Amino acid sequence: MYEVNGWKHVFKLDPDKTISDTELDKLCESGTDAIIIGGSDNVSEENVLNLMSRVRRFLVPCILEVSTIESVVPGFDLYFIPTVLNSNNPQWIVGLHKEAMKEYGEIMSAEEIVVEGYCIVNPDCKAAALTEAKTGLDLEDVKAYARVADSLLKLPIFYLEYSGMYGDPSWVKEVKKTLQNTTLFYGGGITNSSQAGEMSEHADVIVVGNAIYENFEEALKTVQAVKNDR
Amino acid sequence: MYEVNGWKHVFKLDPDKTISDTELDKLCESGTDAIIIGGSDNVSEENVLNLMSRVRRFLVPCILEVSTIESVVPGFDLYFIPTVLNSNNPQWIVGLHKEAMKEYGEIMSAEEIVVEGYCIVNPDCKAAALTEAKTGLDLEDVKAYARVADSLLKLPIFYLEYSGMYGDPSWVKEVKKTLQNTTLFYGGGITNSSQAGEMSEHADVIVVGNAIYENFEEALKTVQAVKNDR
Repeated sequence: MYEVNGWKHVFKLDPDKTISDTELDKLCESGTDAIIIGGSDNVSEENVLNLMSRVRRFLVPCILEVSTIESVVPGFDLYFIPTVLNSNNPQWIVGLHKEAMKEYGEIMSAEEIVVEGYCIVNPDCKAAALTEAKTGLDLEDVKAYARVADSLLKLPIFYLEYSGMYGDPSWVKEVKKTLQNTTLFYGGGITNSSQAGEMSEHADVIVVGNAIYENFEEALKTVQAVKNDR
Repeated sequence: MYEVNGWKHVFKLDPDKTISDTELDKLCESGTDAIIIGGSDNVSEENVLNLMSRVRRFLVPCILEVSTIESVVPGFDLYFIPTVLNSNNPQWIVGLHKEAMKEYGEIMSAEEIVVEGYCIVNPDCKAAALTEAKTGLDLEDVKAYARVADSLLKLPIFYLEYSGMYGDPSWVKEVKKTLQNTTLFYGGGITNSSQAGEMSEHADVIVVGNAIYENFEEALKTVQAVKNDR
């Protein structure tokens, strides 16, 4: 069993995007704590399997962040299941999860499943539109969702998702202070070492995604920025 | 810390209904594992405090099942927080919980909070209408919600709610089989010893509520029916 609460840095790879073998090699050997495979567009069994098999040449933990029931395949170390706490549509909170359990419940092991309590903060991102997220949250709202994840649902992960936009470090700091046991993931707009270091001062784990495809060398440096930071 | 997973029987008292001191004495001294205070109509700070203070003359654990934010008061051993897994309205899944955390998050202790994953099966009950529950569920749906509570959200309680109607024991048996760690509560239509014994063969904990107000002596006997049953 992998313990996410010791992690500091993960890369998130989008199965719908292209990455060379050389780059993948560098990411997997970078010292990052895990490779998460997940995206919101065109995630299919085929591109998930393809990317997993390429990551599996390395020893780094490999996680599937489940976005569609159809793309769930065996072979990952863990399955991250998002529940969008600030969604207006029950499907994104527990509805799709119930459908997944109906289909795969008997074969999935509870030990492999890690639920992420998402709070999507950036109103303009694709994820917010897709999941019908309640936007316009103030800091007190975000802290309240963090407490729902931590004190109420006792989820392993609270995922503060700025998706495509670099967030406010002072918010991340405040959210971290409200959490007792839940691990804080921060994702959104981290493109270089200095941002990685800044967010890592507050979040337990930072997620670097888009930057991999936009400025690979800078993205790669975020690992050391975080590891040196502590 | 009270461990619900060792319980077999609870009485649920409605703060909006009347019970005599003599009857309350009998319930509290009956050997039941806990008294839950909760209802769906006219639950107020005043009638909750009043009923709690009367139960507090006894040593039996006293739990508040939170139905409205306004009626949350200190002094209970545990706070049961329902999340209606089959609701069509996100307010009943995490929305009201977030509001409660916004208001009381800083003063509530995570150790006192126990989340109940409700699945409301009876389409005709007040609870189903109030929480906009998806009805017309088949057994596979109910088992899928049970797995969401158990394998995914890892909730302490899955509450199979027939509310006002005696359920199908074969369903309760099947639901129990799907649960690994989550404690199964059964509520609905238990009016006598024989029904209590039958449901208790499958559910971990049976909840006796309305019967207290309809046929007190029969309701009281459900405790021994369950305790003798094992």
